[in-house]
Amino acid sequence: MIIKLKQNISHKKLNDFLDWLNEKGFDYHINRSLGGILITLLNYPKAFDEKSIKAWDIVQDIKRVEEPYKYASRSYKREDSIIDVNGIKIGGDNTVIIAGPCSVESKEQIIEIAKKVKKSGANILRGGAYKPRTSPYSFQGKGLDGIELLLLAKKETGLPIVSEIMDASDIDKFEDIDILQVGARNMQNFSLLKALGEQDKPVLLKRGLSSTYEELLLSAEHILARGNPNVILCERGIRTFETATRNTLDITAVPWLKERTHLPIIVDPSHAAGIYNMVRPLSMAAISSGCDGLMIEVHNDPVHALSDGAQSINPERFDSLVDDLFKLKDFLNNENIKFFD
Amino acid sequence: MIIKLKQNISHKKLNDFLDWLNEKGFDYHINRSLGGILITLLNYPKAFDEKSIKAWDIVQDIKRVEEPYKYASRSYKREDSIIDVNGIKIGGDNTVIIAGPCSVESKEQIIEIAKKVKKSGANILRGGAYKPRTSPYSFQGKGLDGIELLLLAKKETGLPIVSEIMDASDIDKFEDIDILQVGARNMQNFSLLKALGEQDKPVLLKRGLSSTYEELLLSAEHILARGNPNVILCERGIRTFETATRNTLDITAVPWLKERTHLPIIVDPSHAAGIYNMVRPLSMAAISSGCDGLMIEVHNDPVHALSDGAQSINPERFDSLVDDLFKLKDFLNNENIKFFD
Amino acid sequence: MIIKLKQNISHKKLNDFLDWLNEKGFDYHINRSLGGILITLLNYPKAFDEKSIKAWDIVQDIKRVEEPYKYASRSYKREDSIIDVNGIKIGGDNTVIIAGPCSVESKEQIIEIAKKVKKSGANILRGGAYKPRTSPYSFQGKGLDGIELLLLAKKETGLPIVSEIMDASDIDKFEDIDILQVGARNMQNFSLLKALGEQDKPVLLKRGLSSTYEELLLSAEHILARGNPNVILCERGIRTFETATRNTLDITAVPWLKERTHLPIIVDPSHAAGIYNMVRPLSMAAISSGCDGLMIEVHNDPVHALSDGAQSINPERFDSLVDDLFKLKDFLNNENIKFFD
Amino acid sequence: MIIKLKQNISHKKLNDFLDWLNEKGFDYHINRSLGGILITLLNYPKAFDEKSIKAWDIVQDIKRVEEPYKYASRSYKREDSIIDVNGIKIGGDNTVIIAGPCSVESKEQIIEIAKKVKKSGANILRGGAYKPRTSPYSFQGKGLDGIELLLLAKKETGLPIVSEIMDASDIDKFEDIDILQVGARNMQNFSLLKALGEQDKPVLLKRGLSSTYEELLLSAEHILARGNPNVILCERGIRTFETATRNTLDITAVPWLKERTHLPIIVDPSHAAGIYNMVRPLSMAAISSGCDGLMIEVHNDPVHALSDGAQSINPERFDSLVDDLFKLKDFLNNENIKFFD
Repeated sequence: MIIKLKQNISHKKLNDFLDWLNEKGFDYHINRSLGGILITLLNYPKAFDEKSIKAWDIVQDIKRVEEPYKYASRSYKREDSIIDVNGIKIGGDNTVIIAGPCSVESKEQIIEIAKKVKKSGANILRGGAYKPRTSPYSFQGKGLDGIELLLLAKKETGLPIVSEIMDASDIDKFEDIDILQVGARNMQNFSLLKALGEQDKPVLLKRGLSSTYEELLLSAEHILARGNPNVILCERGIRTFETATRNTLDITAVPWLKERTHLPIIVDPSHAAGIYNMVRPLSMAAISSGCDGLMIEVHNDPVHALSDGAQSINPERFDSLVDDLFKLKDFLNNENIKFFD
Repeated sequence: MIIKLKQNISHKKLNDFLDWLNEKGFDYHINRSLGGILITLLNYPKAFDEKSIKAWDIVQDIKRVEEPYKYASRSYKREDSIIDVNGIKIGGDNTVIIAGPCSVESKEQIIEIAKKVKKSGANILRGGAYKPRTSPYSFQGKGLDGIELLLLAKKETGLPIVSEIMDASDIDKFEDIDILQVGARNMQNFSLLKALGEQDKPVLLKRGLSSTYEELLLSAEHILARGNPNVILCERGIRTFETATRNTLDITAVPWLKERTHLPIIVDPSHAAGIYNMVRPLSMAAISSGCDGLMIEVHNDPVHALSDGAQSINPERFDSLVDDLFKLKDFLNNENIKFFD
Repeated sequence: MIIKLKQNISHKKLNDFLDWLNEKGFDYHINRSLGGILITLLNYPKAFDEKSIKAWDIVQDIKRVEEPYKYASRSYKREDSIIDVNGIKIGGDNTVIIAGPCSVESKEQIIEIAKKVKKSGANILRGGAYKPRTSPYSFQGKGLDGIELLLLAKKETGLPIVSEIMDASDIDKFEDIDILQVGARNMQNFSLLKALGEQDKPVLLKRGLSSTYEELLLSAEHILARGNPNVILCERGIRTFETATRNTLDITAVPWLKERTHLPIIVDPSHAAGIYNMVRPLSMAAISSGCDGLMIEVHNDPVHALSDGAQSINPERFDSLVDDLFKLKDFLNNENIKFFD
Repeated sequence: MIIKLKQNISHKKLNDFLDWLNEKGFDYHINRSLGGILITLLNYPKAFDEKSIKAWDIVQDIKRVEEPYKYASRSYKREDSIIDVNGIKIGGDNTVIIAGPCSVESKEQIIEIAKKVKKSGANILRGGAYKPRTSPYSFQGKGLDGIELLLLAKKETGLPIVSEIMDASDIDKFEDIDILQVGARNMQNFSLLKALGEQDKPVLLKRGLSSTYEELLLSAEHILARGNPNVILCERGIRTFETATRNTLDITAVPWLKERTHLPIIVDPSHAAGIYNMVRPLSMAAISSGCDGLMIEVHNDPVHALSDGAQSINPERFDSLVDDLFKLKDFLNNENIKFFD
């Protein structure tokens, strides 16, 4: 439920109202940026009586959220959201290329890869410091040391950094990281989403292995409704009966989501297929479906990578691929190809 | 098992050998076109003793099929198969555009659509005469009348025709149809596959709703092993948990299959998504993934179509789409974009 | 659409009406057994004008089928259907145990197994003569010879026989087989369903690997609407992401279907799990969920079975299992346990 | 990797070794209860050189974990684990019945339900205080107030309590809750699993919507390997293409898991089907498959429940069901029915 307050109300009245909401057990977010004060009520029982809210004279209007999501929808915001990350724009007519290794392994590794992918045209560096691993006996990432190595690579190349956060209590450690990634397994970790909604750093939200489009938008809504408008969606393959590939890239997610949301949508062909030589054709397909960018795993020594080597491409392959992707993007722009009609 | 016979053997000896195979209960196909006589044994128990075959002096060599499929594989035939349908080439560097309504409804309908899609650049006309319908109470197609209407449209426009066959006993009715389509629900109707393998008309084999890539290739192998080399594969979406779309287009099927088979692979974005305005972005994506063509449902009056109206585009949308697809194909050719590296 | 004709109409008028339906392209089934003459129209366009039917004075009433299925539903027939197979009753309070090998391999094998499963308490013998096999190079069954061996085993033991039919043109070969099985891959082979609806032998209809409950009922409806009321449904596992088992037994199918249909429902734990030692616990679970019987693969030498050895149990295990299943069934009956409340 | 240390080593040497492990970046857990000191190394790269560990003279033996999981496996612990919760035993020959509402709504509601389910024979009370909800606008649970209401119900009835924890930082709030539930969406929230492994309260671990059996065992291993042996697994339905039910109960999970792990396995038929009148037949099936208990949603007023009303049964239905379940369990015990042979 969204409560629109009247103009020019006193601090006293506002505070009385907020105290009353607290007392009633409501959880809420205040948004002052949209021509007045809007209060989004979260966590309320359907049976709650609206009249007790309307009884407050500072309330101008209340609106139930009838669609499952509101802030994520095109009906709320018609034009594409463009998210600015240190000058790199994501969304709208821009195409972002995020590249880097699955895991940060060493200073030499991450700096060498960062330099190479930058030279090839990547805009943002990816690298895992905290890794969600199915087995407790697998390499779990270098943790804080990994974060520091990523920041060294950032200093060296100027590339903004995206890295996965697994726990709300780690937010401080990501202070200088530019984009916080929520992994597929955490797409419905609502504690984490809530914490990310209460800060304003951009969030890269990956679709869960068996999450529907609508569930992805609702997870974004958990972040947006708490005041952080900077959400980037990511299609990274879903789990199906097909075992020849690691997951099944659901390319239809791109146009379906773009029709319904203003948020940028990128595609991760590396995790989707799990096979390095599928990365090229899937990247081409993704750009042609109208997505806002790609996230590609690049490793200088895929065979010896500590994680996900089979799906990583080497810098040479990446260079040739990016070259073709930019040509494709230019073609689509120059010919003014529409993705919808 | 494949038996290679020696050169210059007598008719008598060959016939004795074939009689013996019959007696032992073997089902086989004879192929004379590959530099000698090859006999492919189908339907044999794994435990069968090879020595009794080797004991025949006309047998030069026998080879067990160790991979699950043989004739469909790139290791059997390195270069792309190109299937010629009345001068239209499918496979290799060609891109085929198959278009038309889900069902043939009337003479006016099919001829109007045929003329329009031809003008837009389609190479082949599709139209259903025999329709597999989940409910016995739905429109089941016009049957033989539908076939006749398709042939009228062929006469009028010169476009070759593809139409779905549901039963081996109908083959005679499809005498003048150019490509026989096996629908997704019949991908493992082995009686039908066997009959189609024993004639030489091209077969368009659609992937089953929950069939793996390997099962698709094995269904093709059922046809190929009986002597018909003209099989076109078609990815048309798989069944997943996602309900926002009719099916989930598995775009990775294109590069995965092209790496392993020489057979052409086309994509049907209409059935995959089941939503008309997904057809454009999915068609663009499919061409960029390296597929050999598209099969698109076009209806002159989608709202009143007797079947699949929601996923059909009208001739105007089709015209604009084909225009862009040809530009995209030219771009990919001119820039010499590779789909593998 | 169902047309009810008036009482005591002349042959002449009836024939005129049927000729007219033919002329209009309708496909129909006539049912005289339900207090008058009912004509079920199949294969009609939704747009067809009912008035032209009502204009016939022999027509008393017409009724559109609004639910997706009619003859299969509990609202059409409240009490359980009980299908009589040579005195063996399937449905109602009865529990049928169908057992036998995946494939008929030899006279000795099928007769030995038949005798043993009969002694253990099985009511019906199963055995494959025509086998649908993913690969053309696998053992495809013994065909007509297999049918003959099954009939020998029937003669020897008196057990009725169920065997899979893959093609409508094979119906004559199954003349002395008691139940015709439609395999999972053919659940939507509508040509086959149509042929089976036009004869009256009981049909065992297996759920497709990715077919919904409703699609299963609609496939049954294809048979029922043509006049054959003897359909037995079979849950045999669906295809999911889980690869530890061959398929995933969807046990909820039993109560969900029993609530909506009067048709008997049996469970095949052998194909569902694909692992021999899952057969026992799954059989126990199936009986406790309220199913009407089980179909279990039993082989006298599972290790050397020509097909599906891994999921077959030996006669000793079967004997012990059936013993416990009968005790369980007695317990459920004696305690008057309800499956719904 | 598991390191077994020699007997009677000095504190000094042990501390030096642990410091060295820290320095090298290892994460480890020390287990003194198994006849000596075992150190389980977590988070290590596969490439790590074991010799540097063997070089320490206090190390007696090291063992790589070759199977994906160790502590969860039957080869590690042959006999069933029995988890004692305030005298209620879970595992072995015991059958636990956990019952209660989806969400705690009020003092009256939870106490009324608790009294009723206890009287019917339930052993443990369930109730959600922190609710993971797909939409930010749905009722998110009463939080800490909910915990307090659960503790009131515990005081009133003596029933131990299980409730879902969504964030490691909430552990203190669950001090008097007896079993900590990890929901399906958090099955791979490794931060949460890690925290739960470092305390010793029993954990009820629900299978993720698209998690394999092996992934479930590996998530248990994340807890076990950190020293908490008290893990109860829960099958609660997986996500498939079937939409008639909320999820698909995978009953085969019970015997498959019981063959491989000593941990208790319970079944949640309420979430699995999402339909109240499926709860009875699925509960019967689950007990007959050999599971260690059930978790059933019971609400005194399902129609007005704030969450999951459609799948909750009322106390009368629950009473009748438990009565039959106990009879079934007695039957299985008295007849000495085996679940494996």
